[in-house]
Amino acid sequence: MDVNAIDRQALAAATDRAREAYAEFEAAGLKLDITRGKPSAEQLDLSEPMLTALQPGDHTASGVDVRNYGPPAPGLTELREIFAPLVGVPVDQLVARDNASLALMHQCVAMSFFHALPGGRDAWGGKPVKFLAPAPGYDRHFAVSVELGVELITVPMTDDGPDMAVVEELVRSDDSVKGMWCVPKYSNPTGATYSDETVRRLGAMETAADDFRIYWDNAYAVHHLTDEPAELADILEACAAAGNPDRAFVFASTSKVTFAGGGVSFFGSSPANVEWYLARDFVRAIGPDKVNQLRHVRFFGDTAGVEAHMRKHAEIIAPKFEAVRNALDHDLGPLGIAEWTDPKGGYFVSLDLVPGTAKRVVELAKAVGVALTPAGATYPYGNDPDDANLRIAPTLPPLAEVERAMKVLTTCVILATEETLG
Amino acid sequence: MDVNAIDRQALAAATDRAREAYAEFEAAGLKLDITRGKPSAEQLDLSEPMLTALQPGDHTASGVDVRNYGPPAPGLTELREIFAPLVGVPVDQLVARDNASLALMHQCVAMSFFHALPGGRDAWGGKPVKFLAPAPGYDRHFAVSVELGVELITVPMTDDGPDMAVVEELVRSDDSVKGMWCVPKYSNPTGATYSDETVRRLGAMETAADDFRIYWDNAYAVHHLTDEPAELADILEACAAAGNPDRAFVFASTSKVTFAGGGVSFFGSSPANVEWYLARDFVRAIGPDKVNQLRHVRFFGDTAGVEAHMRKHAEIIAPKFEAVRNALDHDLGPLGIAEWTDPKGGYFVSLDLVPGTAKRVVELAKAVGVALTPAGATYPYGNDPDDANLRIAPTLPPLAEVERAMKVLTTCVILATEETLG
Repeated sequence: MDVNAIDRQALAAATDRAREAYAEFEAAGLKLDITRGKPSAEQLDLSEPMLTALQPGDHTASGVDVRNYGPPAPGLTELREIFAPLVGVPVDQLVARDNASLALMHQCVAMSFFHALPGGRDAWGGKPVKFLAPAPGYDRHFAVSVELGVELITVPMTDDGPDMAVVEELVRSDDSVKGMWCVPKYSNPTGATYSDETVRRLGAMETAADDFRIYWDNAYAVHHLTDEPAELADILEACAAAGNPDRAFVFASTSKVTFAGGGVSFFGSSPANVEWYLARDFVRAIGPDKVNQLRHVRFFGDTAGVEAHMRKHAEIIAPKFEAVRNALDHDLGPLGIAEWTDPKGGYFVSLDLVPGTAKRVVELAKAVGVALTPAGATYPYGNDPDDANLRIAPTLPPLAEVERAMKVLTTCVILATEETLG
Repeated sequence: MDVNAIDRQALAAATDRAREAYAEFEAAGLKLDITRGKPSAEQLDLSEPMLTALQPGDHTASGVDVRNYGPPAPGLTELREIFAPLVGVPVDQLVARDNASLALMHQCVAMSFFHALPGGRDAWGGKPVKFLAPAPGYDRHFAVSVELGVELITVPMTDDGPDMAVVEELVRSDDSVKGMWCVPKYSNPTGATYSDETVRRLGAMETAADDFRIYWDNAYAVHHLTDEPAELADILEACAAAGNPDRAFVFASTSKVTFAGGGVSFFGSSPANVEWYLARDFVRAIGPDKVNQLRHVRFFGDTAGVEAHMRKHAEIIAPKFEAVRNALDHDLGPLGIAEWTDPKGGYFVSLDLVPGTAKRVVELAKAVGVALTPAGATYPYGNDPDDANLRIAPTLPPLAEVERAMKVLTTCVILATEETLG
């Protein structure tokens, strides 16, 4: 976006109309929320049959009574078989766990401070630890890092993933760079899917740390919005092919597939990393909730069952993303005062504004009852150096509310831009 | 037990009979297991209606859709109300979480290394940290400590709980003693319930560390074996009354109430500690599995529902404990070669043998197909200095198998004792 190319006269005219609209919003007493990537009630209803998917007497899987403590240590084989093809991890390298993949990431980072990772000489305790944070990115990744004393280094995101030249230089030159956050498919918030070349370079790059780990949060592996799913290259294969088999930790969950908070999660990696993870986890808990795992097995049946289920999700949320795109195209397109992504999957639209306006837009929207994700949330430490990026999360509200909230948002963008440039 | 008072002639005669019996066991090809405190299939069947306790359309509690992310941060109010009286924690100081209270303990210890506890100046990272371990005790508590680099100091158990004179001296004199493991009711494995005086002294004792924590694992709060439940004094009240309101972390779960691994867990403490815990946990996961929490609410209905449910458990397992007692009384009582506990609740019987024989008993039993908890497991680092204590876990096998396994156990005790003394 070229700020100097903005047509000031057109902006001034749009601002007059925006002031009128804003006054109407003030009078309307709105209460709208497009802050978080939460599924809507209509989406959750898709999984309602899961509540009764297990009938009395149905409690045996993987040869065990799922109601009791005990094996299989990696979770139910039947569940891992269903999801292995979807997350791109061989069944015997895939671990099924409880309701939050974020908890698995937190656990892996935290336990790395107590126990050396495969390939590493020492645990991280007492040493400076840094993670690369492609930004805009996922605020909860950044929060886990801050919580555990991990310093974040911002790396610019591109349409092909993180800027690999920057990544390669940082990991090569500093052995305290121990990890990197990635949402490789339908990225939060830009929607970008890492290119094959990015994946190849991530697997092959030279790292100063001998225990460097890519946290591959494949949160949106099956969350397509169109009939043309993005294809993500296999990170475990890319790492192994380059002689770095233990480099990547893969994470996924059904939080936005079945129930948010009531789903199942997955950890996948090399055999050595899986062994490390299971050794850590067995001290923490005797095993995962196999009852809920079996509930998921019965509900989906097979891999195709998951895919069919996700098409129903897309039918519900694709129109909301279209409403976002239409509002941005119609209200902001002609003015040249913003750029935005057009994701083919995932849960977010990323909106880039004229520098110095993002916080003001959030403030203006809040004043008329529309909650937006805080400006800066998509950057480490909540600090967007340009104060330019906003994340739009349209899945939760009904379509009419998304349309209304977008009208408020574009109005506020026009007002804030005029304030800043005018 | 006075080893010198053992009647050697009686033992020799018993040994002759034991040799014959052992030869029969060898020929029988047994495969019995009394190693772990796992519920039996018959017990798990009691909770089978929970599988369908939530019917489609039933997904609202605490004013929210339990299928989605979101409040209440401490878990469903309805669930906390049911369990608050049972675990002795006010509802607003009780947090409901997922399927493993052990995971909550692990989390609290681990996060104390990253974040100062209320009352503490610093986090524990980089400093020596010690926990007191009343022994015989629970091996998984010890394993969490070892995993996280916490040194264990053994404290002798008595019928009234840990030897408080030893505890008071250790916590008063060493500011690196930061915590203490307790199973205060129907203790694992002795079955002892801490006396009121023990609880009072734990709350009142002077500690060198300003962030000392009692890990109060009330695992068997409602797990009575008789109609005369043990009464446990209120640890939070005892701490608060003595001016140490933040001293105790209380833990509990339904792992041995509903489904092992498929239940719900609880954390209770002072308001300051609860705030600390929730701040830590919200970074780790957006929230607990509220769907499973609501399933438990519907299944139990109210507090009395839990108590009625536990009486059914007792009906199933009390005869197994009786079988253990009968075998010990009959086979070993007249010989004076062992002492054992007669628990009024919980999951275990603790058996003390002639020093130097416990490992040999396990070895002899294993050779004829009976798996016992490894000797030493009830002591820190798996090291019973006397090699004398064994834990008996009779709940899992059917009654006839418990009887058979006990016959093997007492036979092996007689043989090992004769080997050692003879």
